[in-house]
Amino acid sequence: MDTKKILAAFKKQGARIETKARVTLKEKKDFSLWYTPGVGTASLHLAKHPKDARLMSIKKNSVAIVSDGSAVLGLGNIGPYGALPVMEGKALIFKAKANVDAWPLVLATQDPDEIVRIVKAIAPNFGGINLEDIAAPACFEIEERLMKELDIPVMHDDQHGTAIVVLAGLTNAAKVVKKNLKKLRVVISGAGAAGTAVAKLLLAAGVKDIILIDRSGAIFKGRAGLNAHKAELAELTNPRMEAGGLAEAMRGADVFVGVSGKGLLSAEHVASMASGAIVFALANPIPEILPETAWRAGAEVIATGRSDYPNQINNSLVFPGIFRGALDKGVRKITTATKLRAAYALAALVAKPSADKIIPDMLDPRVVKAVASTVR
Amino acid sequence: MDTKKILAAFKKQGARIETKARVTLKEKKDFSLWYTPGVGTASLHLAKHPKDARLMSIKKNSVAIVSDGSAVLGLGNIGPYGALPVMEGKALIFKAKANVDAWPLVLATQDPDEIVRIVKAIAPNFGGINLEDIAAPACFEIEERLMKELDIPVMHDDQHGTAIVVLAGLTNAAKVVKKNLKKLRVVISGAGAAGTAVAKLLLAAGVKDIILIDRSGAIFKGRAGLNAHKAELAELTNPRMEAGGLAEAMRGADVFVGVSGKGLLSAEHVASMASGAIVFALANPIPEILPETAWRAGAEVIATGRSDYPNQINNSLVFPGIFRGALDKGVRKITTATKLRAAYALAALVAKPSADKIIPDMLDPRVVKAVASTVR
Repeated sequence: MDTKKILAAFKKQGARIETKARVTLKEKKDFSLWYTPGVGTASLHLAKHPKDARLMSIKKNSVAIVSDGSAVLGLGNIGPYGALPVMEGKALIFKAKANVDAWPLVLATQDPDEIVRIVKAIAPNFGGINLEDIAAPACFEIEERLMKELDIPVMHDDQHGTAIVVLAGLTNAAKVVKKNLKKLRVVISGAGAAGTAVAKLLLAAGVKDIILIDRSGAIFKGRAGLNAHKAELAELTNPRMEAGGLAEAMRGADVFVGVSGKGLLSAEHVASMASGAIVFALANPIPEILPETAWRAGAEVIATGRSDYPNQINNSLVFPGIFRGALDKGVRKITTATKLRAAYALAALVAKPSADKIIPDMLDPRVVKAVASTVR
Repeated sequence: MDTKKILAAFKKQGARIETKARVTLKEKKDFSLWYTPGVGTASLHLAKHPKDARLMSIKKNSVAIVSDGSAVLGLGNIGPYGALPVMEGKALIFKAKANVDAWPLVLATQDPDEIVRIVKAIAPNFGGINLEDIAAPACFEIEERLMKELDIPVMHDDQHGTAIVVLAGLTNAAKVVKKNLKKLRVVISGAGAAGTAVAKLLLAAGVKDIILIDRSGAIFKGRAGLNAHKAELAELTNPRMEAGGLAEAMRGADVFVGVSGKGLLSAEHVASMASGAIVFALANPIPEILPETAWRAGAEVIATGRSDYPNQINNSLVFPGIFRGALDKGVRKITTATKLRAAYALAALVAKPSADKIIPDMLDPRVVKAVASTVR
């Protein structure tokens, strides 16, 4: 569909989500129960027993989708109004896939302290917080502080949703090329929210040889000018102390994970990889390398973020199930153990992984339940 | 229904509202349009043309119901969790009555600066802000600043919803007792959010003789220890400089409006009023005087906030229509002129006012449309 038609469809549609009454409000007695005076009883009870909000209010099944619009899709810092359609799309997927009542909350501020304060203030209404499209490194601090200070689960989906679905895909891709996941040499292009979380989850899964590439090349211990979060990554990754650029890092690599920008990966890069090369070119909407180019250059398993190629690596496979499980179980944290279980559960839904099928389809009705069941 | 049964009903019910998808999400093409990659087009458009959010996002039809829980019903400062059931009840009424998509946002802060900052930050998601159950005098400053700084309508319902429905009832009550509205002597018990707004709207309607009573008695110009907001009321009201308490003010009064506390008004107070006395005892759930007591003491028209007596003066007659009209017309402010029109439109729905029927019923299907049509 071209841009003009898409825009016309959004304008014709208006909102993609709405509210719905879950009780009837037709007679006086309905008002007397659910509004005044009956509601006073519920109010006094929750004032004394706030934890019961999980039983008897919207908090039971609701998630706030919070974004400051600082890193929207691959479009960059386009602010709250630019972010709104994405958050509304996620709210739609939350409802359609997992019956989660998610409400978009784009914020007209990009100050991390302010964002933390706002999310803490609105937290009583929600059973979970889905942070979304917040740029690195602010996203790390915001998520960490909120996880510490709130008693409901907080997850920055660009980090952990992406990491989970990448690990799921890589688990099956390794089977296809008959390699041991833990022994893979992995190059990650992009050291923002997604790249960082992918690296950390792969480390947790036992992968040892990971090189992160940012605009200045490979991140290694002692590289000049590293900020705090990249200095931490330098400690955790790049054990062979590769100090070159993408071309040097790619030589002999088993896996490329692109969470960076269109066209960054060349056919030569792919050709320099080890045999049985796995290429995840996830930049959206235009990947780091087109699948046909990667294939001609010798890649054996290729995935993108797009729906018009095989192996779509998309967070929609993860966030509905993660929050469904978190709400159902009343958990306070999405732990690393949960993320690993979720990735393996997703991978296990593909009975016989093949080069064209390493990840379940977004329309597969088993996905939400499989992911939700891993949250404890 | 007793307290135990009410609580059981709320616990069994869980949430009273939920979200609902307004588009189907069944095929890949649905994801491609409403989520990635299609949503990117909508995002880029709104980043450049934020005003179009009113056309093509939840902002088109949504209202935030914001409370800090500092003055919940007649229950006092019971905090955000105590406030949550009330806000959820309002969201339910918004949807059922006026098809407005309202979402509760109780806040875990009672700092006015913080509340203003938070509401400004979340405003992009909403087409209107319904402030609710925020104590005076903070509510005045919060509403005033938000009205100045936001380009969407902001209304503190405890103030203006109450004022509109009181003026509507009083317009018809004056007809019943055959008195001229503008010449009524009115005593208002309670100088908080509701009392202040009622006084100001009655003044705008041409009523000249209004005395506000707070815990220290009549508010008059020069009374010691008045805060800024009461000093303003002292300038605007009490032209006869009544300086006594409730008993003194009530002597010869035509109208009592109670927005204070249970049992404050005695039979003797009512007996001392002018003939054709009008008593609006609106404290909830227990009024300033029971209708049977007021009637025996000589009141001719009696209204309460309760559904189990005639003449229920309830904000639910107002807020759904006001915001329906504001969203439909895209207005930025709810003006005094609108409030007066809304009150008169409500009053006009009662074809033949009588002592037992001065205000339309909450179930009357004409109410929302009549009120909405007055917003310009």
